[in-house]
Amino acid sequence: MDPSILRVGVAGLGRAFSVMLPTFLADARVRLVAACDTRATARDQFQRDFGGPAYADIQALARDPDVQVVYIASPHQFHAEHTRIAAAHGKHVLVEKPMALSLAECDSMIAACRAAGVHMVVGHCHSFDTPYLETRALIASGEFGAVKMIHALNYTDYLFRPRRPEELVTAEGGGAVFSQAAHQVDIVRMLAGARPVRLRSALGNWHPRRPTEGAYSALLWFESGAYASLNYNGYAHFDSDEWMDWIGEMGGAKNPADYGAARRKLASLESPGEEAQLKAAGTYGGAMYAGRSPEAASTSSSHQHFGPIVVSCERADLRPMSDGIRVYGDDGREARPLPDPAAPRHEVIDELYDAIRNGRPGLHDGPWAKATLEICLAMLASDRSGTDIVLHHQV
Amino acid sequence: MDPSILRVGVAGLGRAFSVMLPTFLADARVRLVAACDTRATARDQFQRDFGGPAYADIQALARDPDVQVVYIASPHQFHAEHTRIAAAHGKHVLVEKPMALSLAECDSMIAACRAAGVHMVVGHCHSFDTPYLETRALIASGEFGAVKMIHALNYTDYLFRPRRPEELVTAEGGGAVFSQAAHQVDIVRMLAGARPVRLRSALGNWHPRRPTEGAYSALLWFESGAYASLNYNGYAHFDSDEWMDWIGEMGGAKNPADYGAARRKLASLESPGEEAQLKAAGTYGGAMYAGRSPEAASTSSSHQHFGPIVVSCERADLRPMSDGIRVYGDDGREARPLPDPAAPRHEVIDELYDAIRNGRPGLHDGPWAKATLEICLAMLASDRSGTDIVLHHQV
Repeated sequence: MDPSILRVGVAGLGRAFSVMLPTFLADARVRLVAACDTRATARDQFQRDFGGPAYADIQALARDPDVQVVYIASPHQFHAEHTRIAAAHGKHVLVEKPMALSLAECDSMIAACRAAGVHMVVGHCHSFDTPYLETRALIASGEFGAVKMIHALNYTDYLFRPRRPEELVTAEGGGAVFSQAAHQVDIVRMLAGARPVRLRSALGNWHPRRPTEGAYSALLWFESGAYASLNYNGYAHFDSDEWMDWIGEMGGAKNPADYGAARRKLASLESPGEEAQLKAAGTYGGAMYAGRSPEAASTSSSHQHFGPIVVSCERADLRPMSDGIRVYGDDGREARPLPDPAAPRHEVIDELYDAIRNGRPGLHDGPWAKATLEICLAMLASDRSGTDIVLHHQV
Repeated sequence: MDPSILRVGVAGLGRAFSVMLPTFLADARVRLVAACDTRATARDQFQRDFGGPAYADIQALARDPDVQVVYIASPHQFHAEHTRIAAAHGKHVLVEKPMALSLAECDSMIAACRAAGVHMVVGHCHSFDTPYLETRALIASGEFGAVKMIHALNYTDYLFRPRRPEELVTAEGGGAVFSQAAHQVDIVRMLAGARPVRLRSALGNWHPRRPTEGAYSALLWFESGAYASLNYNGYAHFDSDEWMDWIGEMGGAKNPADYGAARRKLASLESPGEEAQLKAAGTYGGAMYAGRSPEAASTSSSHQHFGPIVVSCERADLRPMSDGIRVYGDDGREARPLPDPAAPRHEVIDELYDAIRNGRPGLHDGPWAKATLEICLAMLASDRSGTDIVLHHQV
């Protein structure tokens, strides 16, 4: 057993895992050694594919002495409990975004990991994507002066992807704010490089059969005096990947002729139960799962992204793109190309590995992710109250 | 003298007039019969070009019995006084945006025109552009359901175009809010088709030698429950005409290789006086004026626009473009082409003519334009106070 390899146990073999699987398969620094899931079909497939045990519950996974890191990819509402269980058994934690659904849950997760002396990394989140990390490094170099304004926008088919019923109920962690703002807020915070201080938002929730937030716009102010405008629309009409050279969120080339595919597929279903079945069938262990999820299948050699973003610094606008960073400077514009990704989402393993093996924790720890959740919750609260929400837990 | 032709006297032969001149020249429904300007060179050129008198002051122009309509294209701070003078002499008024710099001035202009029984049209403003008028008509048809969210964005070189000193002083009507939000707010109000109720904004003012607003982001809420996100950046870096098929604001094809031209030109100047001279030289009557302003010269057969806009209705997103409206519907996407413009900005003359000759006042009257100014003033106030501004003068 090579001690330099991280031995990962997977809690939840659903969609998040399906999307992360290519990363685990491609990265020699990690090995999948065990899993747990409520679906027998998923457990069976895991045992066939990886040889390791697949448990019916998280407790058994957390007890497994062969597991060093628990990758928590269960539904949002279970993140806190599963993290506490993993930490209680001395396991490091990689937990999917959103970290949890309340700040109290975040606190309990942070405390549990601290008490156990284990690392927690929250991700994948698109703020791990190399174009954003490299834009942040460019900004930090000072070459372009201070960040003054950020504009982020993403128009997708988010709301019309197959869902379990609770994913359409905001109070249970559903909707674009918990699921999608979690990405956008994280990216914008990272690029601003300053502590957010307040937020004002407007939410869109207008589809009778998908009654949760499908859209939002928000203003976010930073201690530095910079501000950001965050905009999202998941109603499957305009697709802003048109402004990303038709590279999709997962880094794959997108065919504009596929317009409306998500809505058409959903329209063919009869009931919420059928929709949940479709979702399960398309993920790991499901009848329609063909070794790779649709998202993973579209992965290509371009970097992943979360829509068009323009960072306005004093002396340049920067646009992180899938193949590089476009710099619109005082004296000219140029594209600074990025090398192709070594493997999809390898940046998550970079940070996990650095924390656990090298003792160098990275950006995406518990307090960082809690601050992103605070902003997502503030989006919900500001729309409800009709006022700015002052932020208290930013780092 | 053909009584069906509107006889226009021009108050101010500067940049606004230079940009409108192709419209007057192309449209047989109007004739330029007189003018006033403080610059002798401009007066001389007007007399050579049009044969009519060119006065040194507005009073003389307003007294001229041959003038039916005074086109007020003087600097912003004179709009109110010049409107009152024109109305007092029984002249109809076409006044450039922004209508004025305070709501009290707007009220005095509206009262003066009502008392005199003359029409007032406020424009040109980009809300006159056919793509927006036709998008509004599409929305009004009910085909796509109610408007729920609007996203408007424009990244330009606004702040680096040659300016007179007061154009860089917000208190004197300078900056992107008075000059540029006046367009964007007008368009968004028109497309929303509902009364705005409140606004929250963040302003950007970060260039040491151009100390006025060069950027803003704002959220605007409507009585209908819809909301809009308005975003502007005039710092001459990223150019969002990239997302308008490289058609510029004036409807002409733009060469991306001209990147940075405005900033380079400005950098070659020594002083604010030299900059104001450059501005004057490039407009009507100036030494560098070659019969057409640079803006007019770039006018082509495409419609004018004010940057990328996405209107999200219940059953489609609509994108007004220079050559048509892109409809991203539930069942497919399509481009609905528009005929080429008959003449640049003919829509302004349409509305002016309809009001005066046919007794059918259009959208862009005094109370309408006052409501747009209220929102621009609210943008300034919200950033200052750090709160929402409730709107009281919307129509």
